[in-house]
Amino acid sequence: MRKILSTSLMLFLICSFVSGQIKIVVFQSDFGLKDGAVSAMKGVAMGVSADLKLFDLTHDIPAYNIWEAAYRLEQTVPYWPTGTVFVSVVDPGVGTTRKSVVLKTKTGQYIVTPDNGTLTLIASSQGIAEVRQIDEVLNRRKNSQESYTFHGRDVYAYTAARLAAGVITYEQVGMKLPNEVVQISYQQAVKEGNTLKGTISILDVQYGNIWTNIGGPLFNQLNIKYGDQLHVDIFHGKDKVYSGDMPYSQTFGAVDKGKPLAYLNSLLQLSFALNQDDFAKTYSVASGNDWRVEVHPAP
Amino acid sequence: MRKILSTSLMLFLICSFVSGQIKIVVFQSDFGLKDGAVSAMKGVAMGVSADLKLFDLTHDIPAYNIWEAAYRLEQTVPYWPTGTVFVSVVDPGVGTTRKSVVLKTKTGQYIVTPDNGTLTLIASSQGIAEVRQIDEVLNRRKNSQESYTFHGRDVYAYTAARLAAGVITYEQVGMKLPNEVVQISYQQAVKEGNTLKGTISILDVQYGNIWTNIGGPLFNQLNIKYGDQLHVDIFHGKDKVYSGDMPYSQTFGAVDKGKPLAYLNSLLQLSFALNQDDFAKTYSVASGNDWRVEVHPAP
Amino acid sequence: MRKILSTSLMLFLICSFVSGQIKIVVFQSDFGLKDGAVSAMKGVAMGVSADLKLFDLTHDIPAYNIWEAAYRLEQTVPYWPTGTVFVSVVDPGVGTTRKSVVLKTKTGQYIVTPDNGTLTLIASSQGIAEVRQIDEVLNRRKNSQESYTFHGRDVYAYTAARLAAGVITYEQVGMKLPNEVVQISYQQAVKEGNTLKGTISILDVQYGNIWTNIGGPLFNQLNIKYGDQLHVDIFHGKDKVYSGDMPYSQTFGAVDKGKPLAYLNSLLQLSFALNQDDFAKTYSVASGNDWRVEVHPAP
Repeated sequence: MRKILSTSLMLFLICSFVSGQIKIVVFQSDFGLKDGAVSAMKGVAMGVSADLKLFDLTHDIPAYNIWEAAYRLEQTVPYWPTGTVFVSVVDPGVGTTRKSVVLKTKTGQYIVTPDNGTLTLIASSQGIAEVRQIDEVLNRRKNSQESYTFHGRDVYAYTAARLAAGVITYEQVGMKLPNEVVQISYQQAVKEGNTLKGTISILDVQYGNIWTNIGGPLFNQLNIKYGDQLHVDIFHGKDKVYSGDMPYSQTFGAVDKGKPLAYLNSLLQLSFALNQDDFAKTYSVASGNDWRVEVHPAP
Repeated sequence: MRKILSTSLMLFLICSFVSGQIKIVVFQSDFGLKDGAVSAMKGVAMGVSADLKLFDLTHDIPAYNIWEAAYRLEQTVPYWPTGTVFVSVVDPGVGTTRKSVVLKTKTGQYIVTPDNGTLTLIASSQGIAEVRQIDEVLNRRKNSQESYTFHGRDVYAYTAARLAAGVITYEQVGMKLPNEVVQISYQQAVKEGNTLKGTISILDVQYGNIWTNIGGPLFNQLNIKYGDQLHVDIFHGKDKVYSGDMPYSQTFGAVDKGKPLAYLNSLLQLSFALNQDDFAKTYSVASGNDWRVEVHPAP
Repeated sequence: MRKILSTSLMLFLICSFVSGQIKIVVFQSDFGLKDGAVSAMKGVAMGVSADLKLFDLTHDIPAYNIWEAAYRLEQTVPYWPTGTVFVSVVDPGVGTTRKSVVLKTKTGQYIVTPDNGTLTLIASSQGIAEVRQIDEVLNRRKNSQESYTFHGRDVYAYTAARLAAGVITYEQVGMKLPNEVVQISYQQAVKEGNTLKGTISILDVQYGNIWTNIGGPLFNQLNIKYGDQLHVDIFHGKDKVYSGDMPYSQTFGAVDKGKPLAYLNSLLQLSFALNQDDFAKTYSVASGNDWRVEVHPAP
């Protein structure tokens, strides 16, 4: 009986060792889901190891929009387990000299991507443990040399799958680079007197809510309590496109249907919404560095 | 050899026990797939257990449309194995006093959702075995207290994953509630004389077919045979928006391209279509309680 | 110790045998993802075996568009491992006499589909090892006889899952048919003098690039080098809708933003694009047999 148990234990340890890696790959791209591109990437990954577990972040990044790719990684990566391998392919420069890299974050996750600004936010929030350049001689799907336009399939998905499955180590990705990534410049939110100034990072597209880059700690310096009124101005370039008061609320239901409110979103950033309506569409608001917001307590 | 076999058997039983649960979680929401919200929910689930198998029902429920969420569960849940855990997050009242519950159906499936009407149809068709309220002190992702607007990630996905993975039992979800759920009122189909009266539950959106709430057993009371003509009237409020005859058909190909037919859909409910064309768009028909249909044998 | 190791080895072999099949099912349809249809198919598959790994090719095939279904299979199947089972349900003739078949390719993959033209391209490129007709008495979900309109769920997903899980062998699908499939007629690309003539197979919808049916080997007969100018004419029926010169390029970045280029796409077919812009929308170009292209070296 003791022997049986020790055998069991041993096998358990063997199994655990073999399945020690978490073997999760999460894909993001601007490919959309209408054609076979995403499926081809997943097929390549399954060809590397059918034990991998494949997921999607989103494939509806607007074509070539590197900023939004960066934002979606920032919004999502922290909720996945240590060891998860992300692939992000928004790559307007495919075939040019931009580098293909794998970033290892200080929290132990990997992001496989062209280094074109996609890593701007995640490198800052999660920290850079190491950056390696993909050696495309070793880490490229066999017989794919004739195709120059689908690195997502031939290099990124292939490398991510091999890394996640333990076929290659992180070191085998390729040579170590300095601990830095290509940065998209963006304005940080600031407090001037009693006014917070920031930009609209992105729209919460499904509902039309406005997400700013004013984080919770900065906002809390205003000492606003739930129910207090805020005055909000929104500018596009030099034009003021919205000006109004709204309560700071814990729930959307705190105001009537169609009425505005301010709240901290799921990333704890100051946001504006109309209860059960679409703020962005109603007031023709979009996102980007040229969309600014100013917020202060209503008089 | 006998010892080896008995060891093997024992290990097999241990393995079977450990993997005794079916470990399937199916997600539904009105989040869309353009941002990172769905992926964040799945990341949380994978953080609970990387052995879970995660699937989607749909994330394209129109924003805040609880009726459609209820309908999609009704359309899908019966086809998944016993023990499957569903998460449905269409939650206009997030942060208000609506309860967060887990319904166990009489068929042994679990639905994790705000109790806001989402369970209207499935509770009626599958039967309520038990309802429990989620204890949000125990069953909430760690360090998520500051975010009030993403219960899908912080409470529902987390609780569903823990339940599906066997980390908590159903009893550990929280206290037992009475065997009832919040109901959306809807009109049942009826037979008056030789006429069936019902409503348009939903559109078969991809093809523009019209799905009514007139079920197969009620329809069969008209003793209609394949090829018989039906007269169909469709009303929006008091306005008649369609009136015409069409054959009751077993296949779309039974009529010419573009011609109307009546059939029992995949849920065995009376439906109307144009062969290889879009009935809803052609006649500007939509769905809901204010869309009524009347059907009788054509004279 | 030796006994323990031999036991371990034996168990490993048992495990390997049980999991010998690759157990991958990939779904394609024109159902869209807005309702529960795709999820119902996957639920049926999980009910057959929770060990299956389920993936999507796309569910956004335009309704009833068999050509595009054929093209997406062609674009994707080769990248998945041997033994993968594909389900393709674009089925305008559901319930009519079109046959339900499982094609086994010479490369060892299976495609479960109505034989309505969907197999046109894949049968030609991968070769037909065998075709079997699905015996719908044996290979049909229990108690599904009353529903005539959802063979995707009741026959195709069910059969694919049973085949992928090893519940049935390929022979048990049903009787062997001749090694041929229903063909959609399409024009092959040709070289006449110094001019290549072909059609626009499909659009690269997400970016608006134009994908022709002029393959790499045919194109190479023009002896064009990177940087050489091509003259391209595009016709819709008898109307010339585009005429212009563009360089043959290895990367999109080889031309300025908004400028045209010709390249070999990820399937090594001659394609046209505007760098970071939408060729199809800009010049109102679509795809199909009535969209022709003519290409020759610019004078």
